[in-house]
Amino acid sequence: AAGTNVTRFAQQVERYRPRAIAMASTSALEQAERTLRTAGHAAFDQVGSGAGGLTAVATHPDVDLVLCASAGTAALEAVLAAIEAGKTIALANKEVLVMAGRLVMEAARLRGVSILPVDSEHNAIHQCLHGRQPDEIRRLILTASGGPFRDWTGGALERATPQDALDHPTWNMGRKITVDSATLMNKGLEVIEARWLFDVGPEQIAVVVHPQSVVHSLVELRDGSVIAQLGITDMRLPIQYAFSYPDRWDMELPALDLARCGRLDFDTPDLARFPCLELAFRALRAGGALPVVLNAANEVAVEAFLAGRIGFTAIPTVIEQALSAAESDRDLPREADTLAAVRDIDAWARRFSGDLAGEVESKQLHGSPAGRENSDVRGKTSAKR
Amino acid sequence: AAGTNVTRFAQQVERYRPRAIAMASTSALEQAERTLRTAGHAAFDQVGSGAGGLTAVATHPDVDLVLCASAGTAALEAVLAAIEAGKTIALANKEVLVMAGRLVMEAARLRGVSILPVDSEHNAIHQCLHGRQPDEIRRLILTASGGPFRDWTGGALERATPQDALDHPTWNMGRKITVDSATLMNKGLEVIEARWLFDVGPEQIAVVVHPQSVVHSLVELRDGSVIAQLGITDMRLPIQYAFSYPDRWDMELPALDLARCGRLDFDTPDLARFPCLELAFRALRAGGALPVVLNAANEVAVEAFLAGRIGFTAIPTVIEQALSAAESDRDLPREADTLAAVRDIDAWARRFSGDLAGEVESKQLHGSPAGRENSDVRGKTSAKR
Repeated sequence: AAGTNVTRFAQQVERYRPRAIAMASTSALEQAERTLRTAGHAAFDQVGSGAGGLTAVATHPDVDLVLCASAGTAALEAVLAAIEAGKTIALANKEVLVMAGRLVMEAARLRGVSILPVDSEHNAIHQCLHGRQPDEIRRLILTASGGPFRDWTGGALERATPQDALDHPTWNMGRKITVDSATLMNKGLEVIEARWLFDVGPEQIAVVVHPQSVVHSLVELRDGSVIAQLGITDMRLPIQYAFSYPDRWDMELPALDLARCGRLDFDTPDLARFPCLELAFRALRAGGALPVVLNAANEVAVEAFLAGRIGFTAIPTVIEQALSAAESDRDLPREADTLAAVRDIDAWARRFSGDLAGEVESKQLHGSPAGRENSDVRGKTSAKR
Repeated sequence: AAGTNVTRFAQQVERYRPRAIAMASTSALEQAERTLRTAGHAAFDQVGSGAGGLTAVATHPDVDLVLCASAGTAALEAVLAAIEAGKTIALANKEVLVMAGRLVMEAARLRGVSILPVDSEHNAIHQCLHGRQPDEIRRLILTASGGPFRDWTGGALERATPQDALDHPTWNMGRKITVDSATLMNKGLEVIEARWLFDVGPEQIAVVVHPQSVVHSLVELRDGSVIAQLGITDMRLPIQYAFSYPDRWDMELPALDLARCGRLDFDTPDLARFPCLELAFRALRAGGALPVVLNAANEVAVEAFLAGRIGFTAIPTVIEQALSAAESDRDLPREADTLAAVRDIDAWARRFSGDLAGEVESKQLHGSPAGRENSDVRGKTSAKR
């Protein structure tokens, strides 16, 4: 299953000859089918588009493992259906657990299905835990590269452009997640994921800034011993590990050379300059609807930032106001415990944040920069610009 | 069981009230008994001295785990007897495995006894492996602090005094092991231990210099993923882990604070300035009698250095010549596969190295410094002095 990149998808289908295919839109699917027929490869059991197509592929009888790397609520439905069908889930999608962690993990538990994390940080923690008992865990420590703005002052952040944010130091990723890395919201979403994947409390999750991204994450055990997973920054490693688990296969990639790395740095995240991380902890502690609101508000705000409609420091402002509004809105479902409730909260938060981003944009156009609203933003003295 | 520190031992006996006690010498034991009788604590089932006393304590019927932290061949006999008696072994003694790795591991295998490493590096690897299959291991990577002479030039090393060598940057240890850290022989002995503890080949063991001693060691798995164990430098952690294994107990020590560490450095060991590490690999690859010779020659050379009789750079010279002489001595047992053979090789190597150290000393007295004999010693440009 793929999104809308017909050329790339057709190449992959020619190479791997799957029995069923699906794409996000009917038009993309039709284009892909034409391309494949022309090339003489069109013998599929099944085709589909949209959420239905995704679910059909994820629950196909020949499938034993579903690698979910697509975004949004469509993925959530497909993952729940795949769990119901008894498939092992390799999860690279953050929204699934941020929006519906309790729902998904409970379904997996009831069905006896494994959820294997593919995100490098959670994959690292999974490798560190490796058969250890839950009561051995004191804290999970997620590493964060710190993003491209790690050394920027608060003032510089207000003027940061989408292009600045897309210039990530260590990982080459999509636009949305790269901006999330720049705001540290990516780490915030990972904190919420970790809570569900490893069944720990918010107070058991910590974040440390580690610019080189060599240590992918760590687990502190009850005696103070710390287990870490390290590696080169190549997503093929966690993907293959999810495929091979519980076995481990050879991989012909350059080995990690610590002496060549020379130096690894660690620092505490600066919550004053990067309030998104604290907002994620707030949503996680509050629970219920708030992680869904956090996720939706963040998506809307990042989209507005990428479109040049709001400033970088307005992203946390939009999210914070959405969280506060959700807390005081008595009509919103309190719990995100059904797919319908998740959808309602998500839709509410997108509407609210969309309106808010519009207000911020019009204030900016009239000379009142959104960034200045967030008067808590302070800069470090070690400014990059 | 203790060595000869009567005061300290009497305090420990008063505190823990063991049923059996032993000390290295009869006179120390008698003194301890007098002290304890005076204090009103003298109700022991059993007392003993020397190798026999050590073995009696290690095989006492009430004992389920033997923590071996004493040095030399006496410990080897006690450990073999304890294995025979079915005791779990927590091993902090290096000589046992360096001299008789095959013998000890084979005895433990036959008797179904666990050997739990207490040395921080091997304990780290044990924690990293934690139930992983042997075929998952690509390499074990031992970290080395680099010792007090890490940044010294070859020329400065020739003039290094025992006091310089005893000034270890991160661990507070005994005199012999601290000098071994300064020559990197300590890491060499650990490489040989690792070969036996984890049943890997010499080519599967690597050493990386890591001055902060925060990462205690690492395991590279077959897909390139690296698992590391980190912690504060406090030996109570690995000791307790050996006691609690396979469980893990709480420990009220300060947690490792990576952000406060700030920075971890890694470098390749400089075999030109620290040839002892390469000599250990040579002995391990050759096998048979050579690891026993390496260990004995090192003990004699370090003792001569600490007594001010030979220079620091003469330590590897003595060991290298002992290894070469052993390789060409046709009367020496080829294999260290019995306790008697180990003893014969050990005694031969001590005689040979003692004579050699005497020659080096007399050359030094007559104006030909031992250090200069080792013409391969080269210094780095980043000299400390």
